[in-house]
Amino acid sequence: MNIRSIDSGICIDGFRAAGIKEGKYGVALIVSDKICEAAGVFTTNSIKGAHIPVDRKRLRNGLQAIVINSGNANACVKGGIRDAEEMCEMVGRELDIDPMHIGVASTGIIGRKLDLKKIEDLIRKVSLRLSDSPGGSESAARAIMTTDTKLKQVSFEYKGIKIGGICKGAGMIAPNLATMLCFLTTNADLDREILQGILERAVRDSFNLLVIDGDMSTNDTVILMSNRRKPCNSGDFQYLLSHTTREMAKLIAMDGEGATKFLEVELRGAKSKEDARTGARAIISSPLVKTAVFGENPNWGRIIAAIGSEINFDFEKTDILLESKKGKTYVVKRGRAMDLDKATDILKEKKIKIVVDLNSGEEKAVAWGCDLSPEYIKINAGYN
Amino acid sequence: MNIRSIDSGICIDGFRAAGIKEGKYGVALIVSDKICEAAGVFTTNSIKGAHIPVDRKRLRNGLQAIVINSGNANACVKGGIRDAEEMCEMVGRELDIDPMHIGVASTGIIGRKLDLKKIEDLIRKVSLRLSDSPGGSESAARAIMTTDTKLKQVSFEYKGIKIGGICKGAGMIAPNLATMLCFLTTNADLDREILQGILERAVRDSFNLLVIDGDMSTNDTVILMSNRRKPCNSGDFQYLLSHTTREMAKLIAMDGEGATKFLEVELRGAKSKEDARTGARAIISSPLVKTAVFGENPNWGRIIAAIGSEINFDFEKTDILLESKKGKTYVVKRGRAMDLDKATDILKEKKIKIVVDLNSGEEKAVAWGCDLSPEYIKINAGYN
Repeated sequence: MNIRSIDSGICIDGFRAAGIKEGKYGVALIVSDKICEAAGVFTTNSIKGAHIPVDRKRLRNGLQAIVINSGNANACVKGGIRDAEEMCEMVGRELDIDPMHIGVASTGIIGRKLDLKKIEDLIRKVSLRLSDSPGGSESAARAIMTTDTKLKQVSFEYKGIKIGGICKGAGMIAPNLATMLCFLTTNADLDREILQGILERAVRDSFNLLVIDGDMSTNDTVILMSNRRKPCNSGDFQYLLSHTTREMAKLIAMDGEGATKFLEVELRGAKSKEDARTGARAIISSPLVKTAVFGENPNWGRIIAAIGSEINFDFEKTDILLESKKGKTYVVKRGRAMDLDKATDILKEKKIKIVVDLNSGEEKAVAWGCDLSPEYIKINAGYN
Repeated sequence: MNIRSIDSGICIDGFRAAGIKEGKYGVALIVSDKICEAAGVFTTNSIKGAHIPVDRKRLRNGLQAIVINSGNANACVKGGIRDAEEMCEMVGRELDIDPMHIGVASTGIIGRKLDLKKIEDLIRKVSLRLSDSPGGSESAARAIMTTDTKLKQVSFEYKGIKIGGICKGAGMIAPNLATMLCFLTTNADLDREILQGILERAVRDSFNLLVIDGDMSTNDTVILMSNRRKPCNSGDFQYLLSHTTREMAKLIAMDGEGATKFLEVELRGAKSKEDARTGARAIISSPLVKTAVFGENPNWGRIIAAIGSEINFDFEKTDILLESKKGKTYVVKRGRAMDLDKATDILKEKKIKIVVDLNSGEEKAVAWGCDLSPEYIKINAGYN
């Protein structure tokens, strides 16, 4: 039995959603018909958006709804936590839900006070639009976008287990989440502790191996809500959730700020899983690798330098293969430089895969990202 | 008594130098009239240019000359170590010096075999041009440039101790040296072990707090040669050498690939020296801080996010001050956002200083770098 794509977004059985955007400011709502088990993963930045301590407390209570605003991060402002709680109370009044079962998230500029009047107005409008159709999920996904150019929504089914997800994120993407908000809904009937462990493992091999620019945000949040309608085993759920978050990581990489090319890096043959992850991240994080890919320049020396800056390996054993729709070719084989003509042609495509085999062990990791273009700088020089 | 700038470059008493560049390829020579004590600091990349193991052995013998080639890194190639030794032997034959007292360094593209015939030709020409005038130092500094746009040469005197230095570096500058070659000459009469310790301390607070793009090279090398003509105490020499390497770090930052602005970051009031260094580096390394500076956009939230990604601190105690020729202004004072009008004006200058005071301790660190512009990408998309 295979994982199949379904057309619900986060509006799987029992979940409704809606979103609205007016100018720079957006609000999205995700609502369940019952209180859900909830799990979450948050930024490791020591400076955290005000919504994070609020969510941390409430995850334990279970969540029936989540409210998200875009355009303002509600971070580094006095009274931010109170404002985050106030957002939940507004939703509670509109939907007649106990605010202690409502989660909250913010994304946007740091250091500005939330405009609660504006947000209340948007919450009222959104509450009237809640829908259990895929369009409801889509409008929520659209409302949380900031510099994103593409709406990010997925939904999959496996053995009757369903998972829907929406996310945002285009820049400030470091190997630890980073300006990424992700909301997942599921029907999987599993306890909170089990959901939390499965979510952490899924994040580790997806969003934590995703790099746009190496900057880490104060607001990153991944929240999973489960209405427990479908009995299931945890292995099946892990399999489906890991697939879902990997697909979402790719959507974010493809929409990287200013990206002209999507980049997948596979590091194979490492001595340990940790070496494999660290090496793959080093490649995908390197500005010089990213600019070389932008320039369609098969400068493998930069790949080697990036790996070597983080882990020990034997260059004489190393293979580097470049791959795209145009085919594949080794640029380095057991430490020997190969002809680069075909490589240059391969790099002309939009989706590029770099496979590095250290030929020194059995472990591997895959990381995702994009090239670095002048457009990235334009976007970020002016953003405010 | 103050440190004063002198006009010798590396050609202080008893040292001669010369350089030549033909097309992409350059060779520089630094020669002493006697065997010098030598100290060195090298890249921490696990993949190292072939010259590095050669130098490591020879530093102990003392050095009478150093030969440097630009245009080819002599890294990740079969027989690279033998080629590096061969370069020393060529110089030995020309100048009648034992090759075991000759150091070597390479910079340029990774993975291509050195063209030893070309290098021998350039070594012959350079040997005939050796000069003890500042012009000799200048031609050597010019010959080792790759993407550098400015020649980098300094010389200082303090209590009769002289230090001259040349260096190259414009991109691939991470907090641990990185595509930086630096050659220092001095008359200070100190033992090798003492010179090595002083050099390491000087590098730690200069080149190791310098970031252009966060990429780490395979070839970074700092070599210090002392002909021991001037008796001195080690404190005075540390003072002068630290000053010299800091000034060189600034020269490199000012010439960062594509840089339109020079950036100095001072992190004050940290609990530990390590926190101060880590925090200062986090700010200067952040692509989002760098693009904001390029855009003359006082987006202090990105500064806070960058620090928080690496160290714990209390935002409510934090001050952020921006400074340039146009004046200075707080953008954050004890965790409160201030008016940004003046800040925008301050960022219009070419030299910008960011001072962050965590108000939580006594330690501070200064780091140097530059903004991130579309030109950086153009330079690195095409480089080969």
